[in-house]
Amino acid sequence: MSGVWGKNIKLSIFGESHGKAIGVTIDGLKPGLKLNIEAIKKEMDRRAPGKSALTTPRKETDSFEILSGYFNETTTGTPLCAIIRNADQHSKDYGNLKKLMRPGHADYTGNIKHKGFNDYRGGGHFSGRITAPLVFVGAIAKQILAEKGIIIGSHIRSIEKIHDASFEDVNLNDNLLKSLLEEAFPVINKETGHNMQELILNVKKELDSVGGIVETAILNLPAGIGAPFFDSVESHLSALIFSIPATKGIEFGKGFDISSLKGSEANDEFYIENDVVKTKSNNNGGILGGITSGMPLVFRTAIKPTPSISRNQHTIDIETRENAELLVEGRHDPCIVPRAIPVIEAAAAIALLDLMLEM
Amino acid sequence: MSGVWGKNIKLSIFGESHGKAIGVTIDGLKPGLKLNIEAIKKEMDRRAPGKSALTTPRKETDSFEILSGYFNETTTGTPLCAIIRNADQHSKDYGNLKKLMRPGHADYTGNIKHKGFNDYRGGGHFSGRITAPLVFVGAIAKQILAEKGIIIGSHIRSIEKIHDASFEDVNLNDNLLKSLLEEAFPVINKETGHNMQELILNVKKELDSVGGIVETAILNLPAGIGAPFFDSVESHLSALIFSIPATKGIEFGKGFDISSLKGSEANDEFYIENDVVKTKSNNNGGILGGITSGMPLVFRTAIKPTPSISRNQHTIDIETRENAELLVEGRHDPCIVPRAIPVIEAAAAIALLDLMLEM
Amino acid sequence: MSGVWGKNIKLSIFGESHGKAIGVTIDGLKPGLKLNIEAIKKEMDRRAPGKSALTTPRKETDSFEILSGYFNETTTGTPLCAIIRNADQHSKDYGNLKKLMRPGHADYTGNIKHKGFNDYRGGGHFSGRITAPLVFVGAIAKQILAEKGIIIGSHIRSIEKIHDASFEDVNLNDNLLKSLLEEAFPVINKETGHNMQELILNVKKELDSVGGIVETAILNLPAGIGAPFFDSVESHLSALIFSIPATKGIEFGKGFDISSLKGSEANDEFYIENDVVKTKSNNNGGILGGITSGMPLVFRTAIKPTPSISRNQHTIDIETRENAELLVEGRHDPCIVPRAIPVIEAAAAIALLDLMLEM
Amino acid sequence: MSGVWGKNIKLSIFGESHGKAIGVTIDGLKPGLKLNIEAIKKEMDRRAPGKSALTTPRKETDSFEILSGYFNETTTGTPLCAIIRNADQHSKDYGNLKKLMRPGHADYTGNIKHKGFNDYRGGGHFSGRITAPLVFVGAIAKQILAEKGIIIGSHIRSIEKIHDASFEDVNLNDNLLKSLLEEAFPVINKETGHNMQELILNVKKELDSVGGIVETAILNLPAGIGAPFFDSVESHLSALIFSIPATKGIEFGKGFDISSLKGSEANDEFYIENDVVKTKSNNNGGILGGITSGMPLVFRTAIKPTPSISRNQHTIDIETRENAELLVEGRHDPCIVPRAIPVIEAAAAIALLDLMLEM
Repeated sequence: MSGVWGKNIKLSIFGESHGKAIGVTIDGLKPGLKLNIEAIKKEMDRRAPGKSALTTPRKETDSFEILSGYFNETTTGTPLCAIIRNADQHSKDYGNLKKLMRPGHADYTGNIKHKGFNDYRGGGHFSGRITAPLVFVGAIAKQILAEKGIIIGSHIRSIEKIHDASFEDVNLNDNLLKSLLEEAFPVINKETGHNMQELILNVKKELDSVGGIVETAILNLPAGIGAPFFDSVESHLSALIFSIPATKGIEFGKGFDISSLKGSEANDEFYIENDVVKTKSNNNGGILGGITSGMPLVFRTAIKPTPSISRNQHTIDIETRENAELLVEGRHDPCIVPRAIPVIEAAAAIALLDLMLEM
Repeated sequence: MSGVWGKNIKLSIFGESHGKAIGVTIDGLKPGLKLNIEAIKKEMDRRAPGKSALTTPRKETDSFEILSGYFNETTTGTPLCAIIRNADQHSKDYGNLKKLMRPGHADYTGNIKHKGFNDYRGGGHFSGRITAPLVFVGAIAKQILAEKGIIIGSHIRSIEKIHDASFEDVNLNDNLLKSLLEEAFPVINKETGHNMQELILNVKKELDSVGGIVETAILNLPAGIGAPFFDSVESHLSALIFSIPATKGIEFGKGFDISSLKGSEANDEFYIENDVVKTKSNNNGGILGGITSGMPLVFRTAIKPTPSISRNQHTIDIETRENAELLVEGRHDPCIVPRAIPVIEAAAAIALLDLMLEM
Repeated sequence: MSGVWGKNIKLSIFGESHGKAIGVTIDGLKPGLKLNIEAIKKEMDRRAPGKSALTTPRKETDSFEILSGYFNETTTGTPLCAIIRNADQHSKDYGNLKKLMRPGHADYTGNIKHKGFNDYRGGGHFSGRITAPLVFVGAIAKQILAEKGIIIGSHIRSIEKIHDASFEDVNLNDNLLKSLLEEAFPVINKETGHNMQELILNVKKELDSVGGIVETAILNLPAGIGAPFFDSVESHLSALIFSIPATKGIEFGKGFDISSLKGSEANDEFYIENDVVKTKSNNNGGILGGITSGMPLVFRTAIKPTPSISRNQHTIDIETRENAELLVEGRHDPCIVPRAIPVIEAAAAIALLDLMLEM
Repeated sequence: MSGVWGKNIKLSIFGESHGKAIGVTIDGLKPGLKLNIEAIKKEMDRRAPGKSALTTPRKETDSFEILSGYFNETTTGTPLCAIIRNADQHSKDYGNLKKLMRPGHADYTGNIKHKGFNDYRGGGHFSGRITAPLVFVGAIAKQILAEKGIIIGSHIRSIEKIHDASFEDVNLNDNLLKSLLEEAFPVINKETGHNMQELILNVKKELDSVGGIVETAILNLPAGIGAPFFDSVESHLSALIFSIPATKGIEFGKGFDISSLKGSEANDEFYIENDVVKTKSNNNGGILGGITSGMPLVFRTAIKPTPSISRNQHTIDIETRENAELLVEGRHDPCIVPRAIPVIEAAAAIALLDLMLEM
């Protein structure tokens, strides 16, 4: 079981990288929502490859077709299914990947889980390509949240060992997030951004890859979203973020660094200003007891280096059950972090919308 | 909604810190399991307070009563409910906490969420005390996993700025985990452990608190547990770990540090030995594509400093909606990390058992 | 898996007939609800045995204790757990029932399902006694529905071959339902009711039992509750009604009889009166396309004769796997129908509340 | 919420009668299943219209396209999505149905539920056409059940007031069900079948419609499927059966008629024969305590007369909120019962497969 998620908004995703189509059905959208199709396309484009030297040159248009739940350019409130046809693939010999397990990928675990019947072409259902439907849903969720003034934005906190400033260091507001949303390579400090891009191009030449950390903020959330224990905002959000391939960690507010503070430093003291309750610091990242406090929700996601590298690697042959060597051909993303950003934001938008629907 | 979790094993938890009782109903246990009551008590004791100068001197016996689903000292396969009566509380004036919101606690967000009707005494349903039923369930889950040879153990990776060695640095095996399970303050490096405990006692004198990081390992898991996307091991495990109050981050394998590696360094190369598939490194922490690989599952949990400190703090009065000062009286845990360990292990055991039941 | 139900209101029930306690945890109640404890007790009493010659003389007080989620006589919005202690049972030899499977009961299927580990005493978890927690929840649900003017009532439509009038034959209104709710043996036609009771007493003398049909109406429901397909009102309601032991059928509106009408007779024509949309007939029982129409919701539930009869019956010995004879001793309900009514109403109230919470 | 169902097999259905496509995603199919495409097509054909004078002459080919989860003619174990394109519709004036609510249909309740944004063309998401994806899933479920020797078949128990024999009256075995599965108009008594068909043709001439009762049997089920209370076989099955438009009642075994028996007549006495446990009668329809007993599972479904009739009917204009008259043009099914049979069998197959996956 892998493809159904949610309580108030239910998603059902499907598809393989080289199958006929990928897609999603969304159940629980309110009726009467005029979808902003251009905004959805823009989000899909943020994730799509082939747009700069930083990403894989493979072209995917990711054009979607809405099959149901949408009438007169408006949601009906019934399940909305959208599919993205996979472009015709050139006939290719995938035989190698059928038996040689790519390190860092899900080839081996997928083979075990699906007893050898999984579609191994391009990672099949484990491909990052399956996040395109998530971005589609996220774009709709973002639109619904935006109607309530809620805005989600991110920047690249680090690429390998190069670090951008943090949201803590700057004036975190709507305008900053909006400007980050317009950037193909969103950073707070432009010069750092240039260095990061240079690093990625160098790594690409070396047929290697790098990862990084994405920092995401959600502004203007009301206090009171979420619940103690199993439906905590962190539980709900982390479950969806860890659905994104290549994610290895998530932290909220100060995150792991809060463990090196004293309680007297870590506690966010409350104050009231114009009848609005705020905290002086925001070490808890806008969440207390699993529930939003009304302060900015801030979290960071660790993204591992793209496992696809065009270097010789040791691995196993799953058919002969012997050690083997593998050279994964083709051109790959030297760094998936920029393309991961819209997916992370989509996951955050969906998780929060789902929780907000039961406030 | 907050208290129901799981798919194959369903938990329903309930209770408030100063209510009549806390407890849990477990649905989905197989019939015919002879419960090891002593092992359950031992796990409950690991979490219970009052056992050393490092924890709050408040005594809670945490003795449980099984009400159903258990017949002739064996599970029946029907819902098993266990309750823990709260000891009679001394009559106390809780008026302060009713209106003065403790910084770092869920008093404010709980008040918003529950519209002022929550039981504010001792944090009510948000209290760490509600993790006792989780430990009860975890002890049963551990017993079932142990029948399959699976063992879960943890050590304190850091307290404030003092760091223990990591599982990466040592020979991670069953014996190590077993010895850690016997320790009240489990560390790999004993001297570091002494320093940590000294730090905690000093912080206690200063009426302050500290947090830390717990590193957990699960050995002998078969490959193939979990699923891509929404039922990934990381999604399932993180959702339950973030249900534990005071958790601010989780990372798997190398976690956030993997983002500073190159792909050629991060990829765990496969090899086969005596027909067993292994990886040379374990940067992915035993999970690929959301599915266990058969390598040790390793994750770290960031625990914030106990927000209860006996110092004067700024806050708000929720009734008058004015700024105020608060001195939380009573004695508190200067560091919750050692008591969090059995809870983290319980969450891990429950999450894995739930996933394993649909392999 | 058996004991967790619901989407917006989640129930988790537990308990065995002769175990320590039975109970339920309710998750999803809104905070701030002043529970009408007297009304809950009254509903519990309607189900409790031992109140007349028509029921088993066994006494169960069914007094409940609320353990959580309830503070200052008000719901907190956190999980509310209530337990009912089973009275001390006289030491009894249950050995017979351990191996001799009572016809019509769940002894055999329970033994198979629970691999022989089920608590066989008094039917264990399969006992009708486990409906007491449902009635507890139903009483709360009724209170919430009553705040919106919604009222649920029932009458005994038939006992064996004696039939009462139908809700179609009379002026179905609030007053009728209220008066039925006050009756221990609710019927529309009093004389029919006397005949039914006489029949039950005769059957009791013959050490036999009878069943019957309960007709239930829910008035003042708004139009728009439910959904097409899987969350249809009928789907939701029937799933809960069939959770009640002894139920063998459910039908809505005209039910099975609608199949003998022509379309021109069966269709409920719409009209509008004082801007309220109504239908001239109500053959569809207040539901169209799985969604309430605003007309009275009417359904009937078929209850089988109590399988416990004090007569010699053929059966099997599950241990020796041989044919055997069984005489179930003790005194039993000659007719469970009157005691089933509050359970059916509780199920209806819970199912509708759950659906209404997502309107 | 309407379109997601199941626990171990999760379905997500979508589509509108006149939208682009209808379809379903199935999550939880085991990997390695060679789909019998011809068998699926045959089931789809049983439901498709236009095959005889008894059904609407409208042609729908219902040809499906599998988009995912299927590789090398084998299931992969990942979500399998299948869509059925709606044939191009002739441009039509649907204006009437937008505002004139058809009696007996979901037009009015759908309008309320979806706040006027629902696709009203041909009933939109409420159309019986949306059961085609259910039949697709059911065909796969039947294939999996057949591998275990389990067979599902049905006959028309009644059309209006004409009654066929019952499964109780005949030798209910695999051969009978197999022969019924080959019939376009399955009945036990052929002559009764002719009378039924004649009645339907007469009713068609009178521009009216009739309903009926379908009796379904499932043979060779093992004992032990299902659970007490909320996951009872009856709960699970009825919830799915009531998802089928036009269903007004369901009963198991003797059903409503069991209420007119004495306990001594109704109880199914056990006996053992060649170490197989059976019951002498099967009044409980193969289910005791919500769990299969190993006896044939028998249930009946009441289907109302097709609400679409080409006669003048009273109704309301939802826009002007005034009384109105409506003549629904076009040709309709005079009796939906034969086409409902594969849908009912599909629902039964899916419900049982879902429960069996957790035995």
